Formats: sequence, C-alpha cells, structure tokens
Amino acid sequence: MNRKYQAKIYVTLRPSVLDPAGTAVQSGLKHMGYETVEQVRIGKYIELMLSSTDETTARQQLERMCEQLLANPVIENYRFNLVEVAIEIGA
Amino acid sequence: MNRKYQAKIYVTLRPSVLDPAGTAVQSGLKHMGYETVEQVRIGKYIELMLSSTDETTARQQLERMCEQLLANPVIENYRFNLVEVAIEIGA
Repeated sequence: MNRKYQAKIYVTLRPSVLDPAGTAVQSGLKHMGYETVEQVRIGKYIELMLSSTDETTARQQLERMCEQLLANPVIENYRFNLVEVAIEIGA
Repeated sequence: MNRKYQAKIYVTLRPSVLDPAGTAVQSGLKHMGYETVEQVRIGKYIELMLSSTDETTARQQLERMCEQLLANPVIENYRFNLVEVAIEIGA
C-alpha cells in the first residue's frame, strides 16, 4: 500500500549569488512607478505528486531529487512542503 | 511613515496550459529511478521587499505588479503572502 503525497518545492538562489533576472525585474518595476520595491529575487516553484510507503521515505526521495536535479546545490537553496493527499489501495 | 513588507509571490501555469519544462523534469526524474513522480509543474517563486503606507495599499500594488509584469494572466495564476518586517521612521 502506497501513500500519495503532493510536494511543493521552493528553489532560491543563495544570498551570496547575484540574480541578474531579479535585478532586471526590479528595474522594470521601478520604471513602472513602483519605486519602493527592493531586493527582488527570482526562484523556482515546483509542484509534483509522488507515491511512497511513508512520509520519511518520501522526504528522503525528495531531498535526493532536489540535490540531483531540481536544484543546483552550489548556488541554490531548496526547501519543500509535503502533504499526504490519498492512499492507493493495492498499489 | 512607511511600513516595510516582504512579499513571497508564487506564479504557476494555469492547469489547462501545457508545461513542457515540467514534462522534461518528470521524464528526467523517472530516468533517475523516481518512477512514482507525476504531475510535475514548474512555476516561479519571487521574493521582494516593498514599502507602503499600509497593508491594503501594499496588496493592491502587488496585485498590479503581478498583473502587469510578474505574471502573464492569460496563461498563469499568481498568489502571494505579505509579511510586515519593519516600520521606517520618518520615511
């Protein structure tokens, strides 16, 4: 019997890493009149579903996915939320 | 006197819109052995600071920023959280 989880993953640039896209967006917003906007940083937001025997295993799998593919640990941080959504009978 | 807010903005593709990047990531994860991963969707996660007289005004400004620049309302949804971080005296 497998449990099904929804994961919401947030991948952000480490604070020490420059974010040219963020700087461009900030400059665009200022030109549009939003003068008080500062410190714009752009990251990734990933949603996915996965099945696993239990939450601990699901968390371990997700951590490996982030380390290996979803984030670049040299320049990015990641965090995620995991919510159980359903139990698959007979899976 | 201005209040300073941190905004966390989540921009996601509307469910009816195809996500080729998400499909590619899902395929990559399956090749790496994560067979149970499904429904991968990739969006943007934006952090920024802004100053405003009150929270209602800040929310209105953010909504306009999302509609005009941060999201493409035709194919994307957005939502945001706003947290007050400090009060600027004399600003």
